[in-house]
Amino acid sequence: MNKHFLFYVPPGEIADNQIQFPKEEANHIVKVLRKQTGDVIQVTDGVGNIMDVRLSEVDKTRVSGDVIANYMTPAEPDRILAFGVIRQRERLEFAVEKAVELGVTRLVFVHSEHAGKMDIKARRIDKTMISAIKQSRRPWLPAWEERESFNDVLTEYKEGRNVIVAHPNEEGSYEWKPDDSPMLLLVGPEGGFSEKEVNHTLVSGARIVSLGQKRLRTETAACALLVLANLR
Amino acid sequence: MNKHFLFYVPPGEIADNQIQFPKEEANHIVKVLRKQTGDVIQVTDGVGNIMDVRLSEVDKTRVSGDVIANYMTPAEPDRILAFGVIRQRERLEFAVEKAVELGVTRLVFVHSEHAGKMDIKARRIDKTMISAIKQSRRPWLPAWEERESFNDVLTEYKEGRNVIVAHPNEEGSYEWKPDDSPMLLLVGPEGGFSEKEVNHTLVSGARIVSLGQKRLRTETAACALLVLANLR
Repeated sequence: MNKHFLFYVPPGEIADNQIQFPKEEANHIVKVLRKQTGDVIQVTDGVGNIMDVRLSEVDKTRVSGDVIANYMTPAEPDRILAFGVIRQRERLEFAVEKAVELGVTRLVFVHSEHAGKMDIKARRIDKTMISAIKQSRRPWLPAWEERESFNDVLTEYKEGRNVIVAHPNEEGSYEWKPDDSPMLLLVGPEGGFSEKEVNHTLVSGARIVSLGQKRLRTETAACALLVLANLR
Repeated sequence: MNKHFLFYVPPGEIADNQIQFPKEEANHIVKVLRKQTGDVIQVTDGVGNIMDVRLSEVDKTRVSGDVIANYMTPAEPDRILAFGVIRQRERLEFAVEKAVELGVTRLVFVHSEHAGKMDIKARRIDKTMISAIKQSRRPWLPAWEERESFNDVLTEYKEGRNVIVAHPNEEGSYEWKPDDSPMLLLVGPEGGFSEKEVNHTLVSGARIVSLGQKRLRTETAACALLVLANLR
């Protein structure tokens, strides 16, 4: 069996150990990989399962299969990452992809004071996330949402989580010993947090982590914070 | 003075504290920012200096200025990063940009056994690097080069450096306490290191650092390794 490819099928399409492949995955199976009835492929449902699936029907209009083994993976540490929306779509999608590879469990795009509003294309975000879990063989599909302010994010998610804020600083030290406990990671927009946002965050007991003295783009700071959150 | 923009002028264009701006920077100064004679802007030469420059001549064909202050920054820790070339140009350029933001001092693109050959566009790499030092206000322009194998990289650069290799591993621990000493960081290509490459690397006394159990893309592993190399 080829473990190079991991396919994604939403849980709703799996019943009684039988899978009906969505159109895009079916196309890939038939046209690119030229799989045939009886071949075994690997599938994740994005909620922790990786399944070996034997194809029972392979034609141009319909691909289906039977689950013959299911490997359950334990839930991952809770890592919510909220960042000011990135206006360049390419950079935004890159940030999404990297956050998924680096273990984010929920992504929050914040239309903050300095970031402003942006029209998020839901289909593109979903597609980027699915592609990233397949690529990185990570069987958990993160959630994502939009919020109007960092304050909203704090109100909703700070309860029960360590709040960590990335902050560029002349000193350049990372004094932080992360563990597996739930974390809410905040990264400001390109223009930085507004004064009001910083005040709210500080009041809520956040820990500020320096990412060194260079000015990092939002997506770079997000990656760096997740790498650090994975440190043991 | 607007510290938001940092311009780049190669050292060869600066003599006797006078600067002749290259065409692209001149365009930006005149057409985008609409600067005028007497305005002061900040310029780096990519070899550690950030200068305040008063514009002495601003017209469509020629922009020049006088250095009125020079802030020298100390040399940065030696961080050579070598990775298997990434065949998708967008991802390759992203890796370059992020490596520059995260403090690489020399980038080596390796046409390794599994990565294969790729035609690197020198002008694009230069442009990406220059843009990244300006964006991150980092006054050191990293060097870059291509090599035919990881073995070549080791032969050339392992002397006097800690050799660190990124390796995805089921255990997922990062047992590594970096410091400011010179480092050679190696990241394999998408297909991983070949057996021969791993053997050569191990023989040369490299330390293997796990980046967790997820399969990371080359550019993600490169970012993660640099973030970790910056840890204090």
